[in-house]
Formats: sequence, structure tokens, C-alpha cells
Amino acid sequence: MPEYPTALGASSRHEITLLGQSLANDVMGTVGFGELAFWLATQRRPSAGEVRVFEAVLAALADHGFTPTAIVTRLTYLSAPDSVQGALAAGLLGGGSRFLGVTEDCGRFLHEALAARKPDQSWDDFARDVVTQQRAARKFIPGLGHHVHKDGDPRTPRLFAIAEEEGLVGPHLSLFAAIGRVHPEILGRTLPLNGAGVCGAALADLGLPLELLRGFALLARTAGLIGQLAEELRHPVANDIFLSVDLNNRSVAPDGGLHG
Amino acid sequence: MPEYPTALGASSRHEITLLGQSLANDVMGTVGFGELAFWLATQRRPSAGEVRVFEAVLAALADHGFTPTAIVTRLTYLSAPDSVQGALAAGLLGGGSRFLGVTEDCGRFLHEALAARKPDQSWDDFARDVVTQQRAARKFIPGLGHHVHKDGDPRTPRLFAIAEEEGLVGPHLSLFAAIGRVHPEILGRTLPLNGAGVCGAALADLGLPLELLRGFALLARTAGLIGQLAEELRHPVANDIFLSVDLNNRSVAPDGGLHG
Amino acid sequence: MPEYPTALGASSRHEITLLGQSLANDVMGTVGFGELAFWLATQRRPSAGEVRVFEAVLAALADHGFTPTAIVTRLTYLSAPDSVQGALAAGLLGGGSRFLGVTEDCGRFLHEALAARKPDQSWDDFARDVVTQQRAARKFIPGLGHHVHKDGDPRTPRLFAIAEEEGLVGPHLSLFAAIGRVHPEILGRTLPLNGAGVCGAALADLGLPLELLRGFALLARTAGLIGQLAEELRHPVANDIFLSVDLNNRSVAPDGGLHG
Amino acid sequence: MPEYPTALGASSRHEITLLGQSLANDVMGTVGFGELAFWLATQRRPSAGEVRVFEAVLAALADHGFTPTAIVTRLTYLSAPDSVQGALAAGLLGGGSRFLGVTEDCGRFLHEALAARKPDQSWDDFARDVVTQQRAARKFIPGLGHHVHKDGDPRTPRLFAIAEEEGLVGPHLSLFAAIGRVHPEILGRTLPLNGAGVCGAALADLGLPLELLRGFALLARTAGLIGQLAEELRHPVANDIFLSVDLNNRSVAPDGGLHG
Repeated sequence: MPEYPTALGASSRHEITLLGQSLANDVMGTVGFGELAFWLATQRRPSAGEVRVFEAVLAALADHGFTPTAIVTRLTYLSAPDSVQGALAAGLLGGGSRFLGVTEDCGRFLHEALAARKPDQSWDDFARDVVTQQRAARKFIPGLGHHVHKDGDPRTPRLFAIAEEEGLVGPHLSLFAAIGRVHPEILGRTLPLNGAGVCGAALADLGLPLELLRGFALLARTAGLIGQLAEELRHPVANDIFLSVDLNNRSVAPDGGLHG
Repeated sequence: MPEYPTALGASSRHEITLLGQSLANDVMGTVGFGELAFWLATQRRPSAGEVRVFEAVLAALADHGFTPTAIVTRLTYLSAPDSVQGALAAGLLGGGSRFLGVTEDCGRFLHEALAARKPDQSWDDFARDVVTQQRAARKFIPGLGHHVHKDGDPRTPRLFAIAEEEGLVGPHLSLFAAIGRVHPEILGRTLPLNGAGVCGAALADLGLPLELLRGFALLARTAGLIGQLAEELRHPVANDIFLSVDLNNRSVAPDGGLHG
Repeated sequence: MPEYPTALGASSRHEITLLGQSLANDVMGTVGFGELAFWLATQRRPSAGEVRVFEAVLAALADHGFTPTAIVTRLTYLSAPDSVQGALAAGLLGGGSRFLGVTEDCGRFLHEALAARKPDQSWDDFARDVVTQQRAARKFIPGLGHHVHKDGDPRTPRLFAIAEEEGLVGPHLSLFAAIGRVHPEILGRTLPLNGAGVCGAALADLGLPLELLRGFALLARTAGLIGQLAEELRHPVANDIFLSVDLNNRSVAPDGGLHG
Repeated sequence: MPEYPTALGASSRHEITLLGQSLANDVMGTVGFGELAFWLATQRRPSAGEVRVFEAVLAALADHGFTPTAIVTRLTYLSAPDSVQGALAAGLLGGGSRFLGVTEDCGRFLHEALAARKPDQSWDDFARDVVTQQRAARKFIPGLGHHVHKDGDPRTPRLFAIAEEEGLVGPHLSLFAAIGRVHPEILGRTLPLNGAGVCGAALADLGLPLELLRGFALLARTAGLIGQLAEELRHPVANDIFLSVDLNNRSVAPDGGLHG
């Protein structure tokens, strides 16, 4: 018979433990939700500074207004109001490569790049190597550029400042900052370091699992989607969105379809 | 052309706002994640005491070990490791009536019951009416009873104590506590007030939207499921679970099927 | 060690069986997809007539243009093109009480009503009882009425005709037809029997599990949603839908929120 | 105001059309479900032979017993029986790279490889090039090898035979067959062409969109998952599966976690 080890939740008739702590006595009322999420993911209790950086990242990613994920959650709730879990799950399913993936892509990119840093190489020199290589491979640098905040994403300097205040600027944030400084001389134009990217760098510096960086963006977004549903309950727009599409459909002839 | 009002996220070339605040200056680094989730759901900033009760509820609901939802998330990640969002969404979809629904059911039940309270009626007298009516209707009282913690759920007295410390014992918690005191004389046996139920009462007292109480259980669980995935990455068990089922399948003859 | 019985798929080194058949020799190339879906759900092979009625139901429910589920699938694919499974799952999650639930609600309603039929009672007399009781209870009759096809849903007479041709008009369809005939004299106005409702009646007459009637609507819709994605690949509209919402957002002040 | 063109479902007060056909008169009762799914995806009506090959593929992929996706659907239904759509969606979310992805990977791989075929090159010579290149790049060939059916997957010769009978062996199936013939001389061992792979080759030869090949596996699997739920209703095993994990959990100390 296989056994399944876990350090997460366990319970007996008289006790519930979580991460080896008494849930009632040592966690409830004492451990904040961001702190707990960090602890669950790493199985080590974060410092107050780590919690502050982590929660700043979650705040940065929680809600961006009428994104596809927000629209999806509202429409699914319109269609199936009996299932809040379905509406939230549907929204999270949009958290893939295009709209929520930059955080993870950036964290992973920086982590892989760091393996090649030479001893004593300055961050700017190293960043020149990294940007030059990406350019030679005709690849984008994740986290560089933003379609709206062309002169700078306000989240980026703020997250750098918070990490600095907490003494938590590690190699990922250092490399990312250096990329921000040196890329214009190599690419010939100045692009902003975007908020999703700096969040990925910060999460990687916190030692969170790289395979799950997207998961933290999704945790933040879950809070945002609950906010979307709460607003939908008070000021519904989903039916208007649905009708704006349905009433503007234009029937066309089938076009047959062969892959090219 | 329809317009879609929202007080949630908005952005322009130089600014990002959330709930009417500057995201970078007034939210990041200042507002904790539990606080932000509360604020997003109610569009009003909670007090420190409200945040503490709310985060205690989230801690109580975050992870219960190898629940169906945890197993589902691990198996889905085994099967589709390219999609963390799919693994989390699949786990949340188990957050329905049976395993995560008590929180919402209890909050709603108390809220509906409260409409019938007579002026100046004591909580115990009122609770006697409520329990008597449910019994007459042969209905269970949501939040009463637990299959493991038969002598008391350790989360329940702790959450009452925290709410008391913060001055946040409102009508829902008051009625729930009274049900705990009086039900033995009516039902003829003593059942514990369970943790999921007291969480529902506390969330209702915090003024959170009753239609979304399940949503807060799901938010808590999202953090728990990320913890499950992180543990799965380090100490995988999903393949063993899969094989323990697959290798113990027993092929039987089809039985035909007609509804009764 | 528990064992898990199943009559569904099983495989050994040299053989794969499904429903007790050799998958390669007796199912592939011989059994149509609608027939197989029916067989899997009931574990008995349907007759040709049953397959025809079943596939007519699936055709009736497969796609209705830009429904919320179709929009959700397109938006999720826009947001996470790496995960076709996520886009389809998100669309299916809208298959709840409001937009896809009528089929199941109608089948269950008829099934429960049928228990009260007196021996030899004519369908019209029985239908008068049923409609009168629903009216007295101030409840709607699932499957009665349509917001667009006010003079009649074209799918309804067609499905009755197909069931008639195949000798498969059972008690559920008979009662549903009778409700269509007698309700005007009781309700004082004439409503159409809608297509979703007649599909539920037909599925119930086929002996499919009532708890899963919604599942067949979802199976049909899966084919429809793949059609939506295929069209989105050739003629994308999801980004226009997204922008039509995002660009027409109107920032308003937070309103605070207390449940009433 | 944007317009949204579609050739899929449309309806007016008196008519419902689908793919330019009258749904009631020209589709219901006439078009089988596999045929309809094909038509929806390509917007051209398939021939009878194409439908037979397509439905053989769907049969091959519908159910494989207690796969992770089947277990997930059963556990989710156990946990949230109020939401059939959630249980099906959760199961489909496992349809990713590892367990259902081979079909799509193989179809795409063959399609991309075919671009390099020289005029008049024999299939075996071309297959030698393809296998040699993959080997040099240290990459697997999707669809080659099976962990159970080591001497051959029974679905493979059957699907080739059906395609042959219908005159539908195109370049993808031809290349795949040739890979089956020539790979031992290059790789030094004989591997079976697996069923998921041959399905991908057949779907590509049918001209179905390569980006959605996984979608057809998911359509097939939806029918299988409904079968799983129907069996779960009659012979429940989900609670036993849950308990076999939960009762065999072993509480261990948290291990802290840093990415490597």
C-alpha cells in the first residue's frame, strides 16, 4: 500500500495542523494571508520583509480592469450563477502565455541567464551580454516593453524601491534593473521594464518555485476576480457585453477550411 | 455604444489606479493581500480588526491535506504540466456543495434566519426557535456536526475568540454560538459547531457578499493548492495515486442502464 | 487494498477493450460517435432509431452562435492560446442553470411529474393537472416559452417528428406535447415548447441518466466550441470583443458594499 | 460599432440556421454527430468516408479506463455534485501535453516534416531523413513507442486499414507508416506506432486544423468522461479513491524550499 507524505494540512480528532503548526493556536489570528501563501509554497516561514515584497507583487497583479479574464468570469457567472467556482475557474483559465504569463517567463528567463554570469562581472556588463545574445537569437526579452505605459510602468520603480527598503534586491532584480539600463545602447531604442516582469524577478529573488511563478499571478487574480463578481452583483454589465456581441453578429457563408 | 462602469483597475499612459487609489503609491507595499482581497470584494477599506478576522478565516480554510480538490490538482498537473492554471482551476471546481460549500450555506442560513428575530429576543431563545423550526422541517443546520472533530473543532473557539478580541461578534456569530449552546436540549444530542460553519458566520458578520462566501473559501484554497503543487514538485505522489487506481481496476461486464 | 470495477476502457499488452468489446475490431470503423457516446453513458448499445433521435438532440444543442459560452471560449483562447483544453473547459463552465440548464430541468421535471399519473388518465387530462399545480405553486414549467421564437421553436416539431418516425415517443415526450396543447386554457396565453425542453424530454425517453442530461448538452456544445475556435483561427473576433469592453470602461468611484 | 462575422449558429424569430443550413430541416435527423463536429470545425461537409475515419479516431480516443482525467472527473463530481459542467471541465483540463497531447504533437510534427520532402522522394527514403534528423537533434518522434503495447498498438493497423478502405491515406499517414517501417534500421530497436499518434496523422490527413487536433481528442474524451460519471452514479468508487489517499497520508516535517 503506498503512503503519501505531506507537510501540509493534517487532522486528528482533537487537532488540526498545517505546516507542522497548530492551525488554531499558531496560524489563525497570527499569520497573514500573504504570509501563509508564501509559507505554503516554500514550507519555510518568510520574514516580514519577504512578506511585504510578496504582497506588493500580489497587489500589482490582482486586477487590471476589463481584461479577458475579468470578462470571462462575469460572462460565466451570467450563464451559470449557481457555480461561483466555475466562474472563477473559467477566469483563471485565461491565465496563460499571453495575458498573465510574462511574470513567469521573466523570472525563468533571468534565472536561466544567471547561470552564465562570470565571477565579478558587473551587472551592466553581464546585462550587455544577455541583451546581445537575445538580440542575436532574434528573441524578445520577457518583461521589456509595454503597449500602454510606454514611458515607464509605475509599478516597476515602486517594486524596486520596496525590495531595496527590505534588503531583498537579489540577482534576478539586479539583472533586470541592469537590462533596463543597458538595452537602449544595444537595441537602439528605450523600452520600459514592465510591471509583470519586475514581479517575476522579485518572486524569483524570494526563492519561490520557478515552475509556479504563474501560480502566484493566479492567486492574485483570484482576489481580483472575486472583486469583479462582487461588482457584477451590484452593477451588472455581463448581459450588456453578451448582447453587444450577439446583436452585432453578421451571418456569413461558411468558408470551408484546409490547413495551409 | 454601451459603457461599462468599474471602480476596479484602470490605467492610462502614466498611471494605474485600483479602487480609486494609485496602485503603485498607495497600494503596493502598504496594503496586505488579505486586506486587498476584502477591499476588492466590498469596495471599502477594512479596519485592522476586520482584516485580522478575515485572514483567520482564510487560514482556517486554506488547506486540509489530501482532499479531493488537492488530489485533483496534483493529478491534473501530472497530466498537463504545461498548464498550472488548468491544475488550479480543476482543483477549484471541486469547491461545490459537498466539500467547500458549508461556509456559504451556513452564512446564508444564518442571514435568512435573522430576518425573523423578534426585538429584544435573547440569542438563546431565538436560537431555540431556529433549531426547532429546522427540526420540524427535517432539515440539517449547516455548520453543525463534524465527522472527525466529534468533540469540537479546534478552529471554532479560536475564531470566536479572535472576533471577540476585535469587537466583531455580530448577529451571525451570535446566533451561531447560541445554536451551539441550545441545540442539545432540542435535538437530544450534542454536535460540534464546525470550522467551515463558523467561518461562514464570521464572513457574514464582516459584511461580505453572501452570494460570494464560497468565493472566499476558494481564494483560501487557491493558496493551499499552490502549496500542494509546490510539494508535488519536490515530493511527487500523483503518479502513485494514479497507479494505485489504474493497477487495481477490475474489468466487469457492462450493466446496461435505465433510470429508476 | 480497494478494487475499482469498471466496464469502460481496459487494456493489456495485446488488447484494448471498451464496454466489453474489442476497441480496434468491434468499435473503430463500426460504431458512430453519437452511438458510442450513448453506449458509454448507458452501457447498452442503442438501436439505430435511438441513435438518430440522440444525434438530432445533439445537433439541436451544438451551437447557437455568440452565446456567453462561445464568447468565453474565444476570449480564453485569446488570452491563453497554449491551452486549447483551457479554452474549451472555460466555455463548458457556462453550461449551468441559465443558458444550458433547461434541457436537464425539463427532463427532470417531466420525470418527477410522471410519478403522479393515474392509470388510464389521458395525456391531456394529466397535463392539465401538472400545469395547474405548477401555476398554483407559482412556478414556471421548464421548456415552456422562448424569448426569440415566440411563435414556435423550429426544433420542436422536428424532434417530435423524428421520434415519431423512430417509434420513440415515450411518456416524457407525450406529457411535454400535452403540456403544449393544454397550457393556454390554464395559463391564459400560448407559449411555445422550446427546443432545449423538447431535447430534455427526448433524452429522458431514451433512458439516459437524468442526473447527466446536462452532460449531453455539454457534449454537443463541445463540438460547437471547437467550431467556434476553428472560426476564431480563421476570422478572429476575440480581440475586438475585448477591446469593445476595455475601451468603453468608465471609471467610477468605489461604492462600498454591504449585503442588504 | 464592431461587427462579428460568423457562419455558425444564427437565429431569427422563425428560423435557426447552422453553417448556412436550416438546423431543423437539414441538420437534425440527417447529420450524424461526428459528421456535424467535422463540419463545424472545417465549415465544409465531409464525405461519408471522411466521417468514418473521423469517428474511428474519436472511438480510439474516447476512454482509456482510470486515467488521471477519469479519476479527476469522478473526484470533482464527488466533491461538487451540483455541477456536472465542473466535473467534465476538470477532467478535460488534464488533456495537456502528457496524457492527451501526443495526437496533436504527432500531427504537427508530421505536417512540419512534410515541408522538406523532395519531389518524387519515396516515403521510406524521406522517413529515413526525418528519423535521422530527429535522432541527430536528440529528439523523440511523437507517436513512436508505447509503455504497454510494446509489440504493437491494436488501434494502429485498424486505423490504417479504415483509411485505406476509404481512400484517405494522405501524406501524414504515409509518412507515419514509413517511419514505422524504417526507424529500426536507424534507431537500432523496434518501437510500435502508437494509437494516439496514428490518430493525429489521420486527423491531419482529413484537413482538420492542426492547432485544434488536441480539441478532437478532448471531444472524444468528453463522451468518455460522461461514461465515467454515469458509471460512478451506478457503482461509485470516487470516495474509495479519496479515502485510499487520505487515510494513507503520512505527516512529515516541512522541508523549506529553494529553487536550485
